[in-house]
Amino acid sequence: MIDATDDARYTATALAEQTSSILLAWGMPADTVAITVDAMIDTDLSGVDSHGVSMLMMYENLKREGRLDLLARPEVSADLGAFAVIDGNNGLGHPAGVAAMTLAMDKARSHGIGAVAVRNSNHFGAVGYYVRLASDAGLIGLATTSTRTPAVAALGGTTPVLGTNPIAFSAPRVHGEPLVVDMSTSVVAMNKIKAYALKGKQLPPGWLQDRDGNVVTDADEGYRLLGSRGATLTLLGGSTTESGGHKGFGLSLIVQVLSGALSNASAPGRGVDRDNLGHFFLAIDPELVNPGGLTAQNVEELLSSMVDEEPGVLIPGQPESEYRADRAANGIPLPHSLLRHIEDICGRAGVPLTLAPVGG
Amino acid sequence: MIDATDDARYTATALAEQTSSILLAWGMPADTVAITVDAMIDTDLSGVDSHGVSMLMMYENLKREGRLDLLARPEVSADLGAFAVIDGNNGLGHPAGVAAMTLAMDKARSHGIGAVAVRNSNHFGAVGYYVRLASDAGLIGLATTSTRTPAVAALGGTTPVLGTNPIAFSAPRVHGEPLVVDMSTSVVAMNKIKAYALKGKQLPPGWLQDRDGNVVTDADEGYRLLGSRGATLTLLGGSTTESGGHKGFGLSLIVQVLSGALSNASAPGRGVDRDNLGHFFLAIDPELVNPGGLTAQNVEELLSSMVDEEPGVLIPGQPESEYRADRAANGIPLPHSLLRHIEDICGRAGVPLTLAPVGG
Repeated sequence: MIDATDDARYTATALAEQTSSILLAWGMPADTVAITVDAMIDTDLSGVDSHGVSMLMMYENLKREGRLDLLARPEVSADLGAFAVIDGNNGLGHPAGVAAMTLAMDKARSHGIGAVAVRNSNHFGAVGYYVRLASDAGLIGLATTSTRTPAVAALGGTTPVLGTNPIAFSAPRVHGEPLVVDMSTSVVAMNKIKAYALKGKQLPPGWLQDRDGNVVTDADEGYRLLGSRGATLTLLGGSTTESGGHKGFGLSLIVQVLSGALSNASAPGRGVDRDNLGHFFLAIDPELVNPGGLTAQNVEELLSSMVDEEPGVLIPGQPESEYRADRAANGIPLPHSLLRHIEDICGRAGVPLTLAPVGG
Repeated sequence: MIDATDDARYTATALAEQTSSILLAWGMPADTVAITVDAMIDTDLSGVDSHGVSMLMMYENLKREGRLDLLARPEVSADLGAFAVIDGNNGLGHPAGVAAMTLAMDKARSHGIGAVAVRNSNHFGAVGYYVRLASDAGLIGLATTSTRTPAVAALGGTTPVLGTNPIAFSAPRVHGEPLVVDMSTSVVAMNKIKAYALKGKQLPPGWLQDRDGNVVTDADEGYRLLGSRGATLTLLGGSTTESGGHKGFGLSLIVQVLSGALSNASAPGRGVDRDNLGHFFLAIDPELVNPGGLTAQNVEELLSSMVDEEPGVLIPGQPESEYRADRAANGIPLPHSLLRHIEDICGRAGVPLTLAPVGG
């Protein structure tokens, strides 16, 4: 998969250095900056442009509004056997997420399975990054997160009461890249509506409806309505039981319970503290109960037999892995508009713009 | 929810006694019979008619074909900290499922979280039964299972390579019945096609397609094709990425990896032992890390606020709970055709038909 864009490209190293300089200027400690930048740049490398460095604008807004404590470090607030709770202390979500997945992995290595719930967190980028920490170490990883904006209705309703509630899962294979599932439990994520609006494309019917249940296909109007809680994204499976909408509703509730109820994080748009995001991380060490690498062999057989039989089948995680290969070799394309935003952020933070395009 | 049927009704006790007499005559030990019958009757009480006593015909076939060891007892084959593997020893799945969920719950009470993978199992009825064992005890439960029949294609393919791969989740609330999600990861389960065929109803487009990708709406033809691997059920989210089909594919793979890869169970239709079904059970004790019943309070607030705001919203698990109230009071309706099947099974097992309708 090669980006079909004329946008100038920048090396991962250059983008990491620029991002670090901004976060350090904002007052973040060097250790949490390193963790955060690694997650952000990996996300851009993986082609998930909506959740990497383009989030700097949102983080700057949260900082300006005093809704984010950039000096905070996550800390373990309860730890019993194979399960722990981490308090993000209202810092950026990446350090809390990495601390939590790392702790869950340590617990899995001792107990076979480990889990960590996180409260008082913020946006942590792409969920897929965290589960890959597990599979890169030979473990199985699962992660879920609550999200800030109420954008999804219960099945049978039109009021936005749930977030897009993503879930991610990763399992190691014997050959090549791990299986990585990374998905919102709505039919599409919010950034998809934004992307269609930016491109002036009509939304497919079935993605978005207004509060009266009418289908919205104008992407601009839809994105505006989403922001003012005047529309909702359809649940995975659609808006009827016949099409499976009750299953998307069920999945969204599973994510909300795991991410919120276990750690007392807020439901989106509810309570006094709408910024109290919650995450849930689970790691399994298959080697303890199924030694000899058999689990990875089983995953390998399952996936490779599917592709051998039908070459058109795309295994989840494969597009991101192809993006990483291309972008690591050729650089990460940044739209000119994003580069302008980064330049403005540098200006306000008092750091120089060091980004220069590859071969530029 | 009251059954709109003229079928004669039978008390749960009468149905349990009849089912026990059959399983005992088949040679099952009394302790595994008691566990199996409890699961089967609870499933009929919950309105999940496809997975309760109506399964006796299939179990009798498996027994006759020598593919099921009714004398078997499940045993723990690996046990390390918070994770264990249980071998079902090719018995019916219910005793293995109950043993596994009970062990996962014990582990959760000690370690905060516990998981058990099961191999060499068979059909275990409705997944929802097992997660309710956890929530009835104040824990959060999650369970998945592989299924026997290849009935679902990978996204981008038309070859049946996956089962309907169900997942279930349950969390306790403060008031009333727990949240119970119990869903296949295909748009509908196989029994839905059978039910439409029995009623002579047309299938909605989008449920089933043949090997050339053509939509099948004739339910009889569809059910026949499913049996001969000439058709596949659509993934949750549909058959395109635009409609979210890649998410249903991802979920199906998650279930297959958890249920099969961890325990070396077979993928459907693959390997030498297509009867080696696998399950996965997870339990979380929220009290250890979030004491004072706060987690159940959080779930209660989440769900009751949704229904308060929009009374048309149906919380997953609510229909089954209403079925249980009605059927416990008024009996379980059995279609005449099922009663005839049970009578035939009794005849072949050499036990009397003791079932008599309520008030009959």
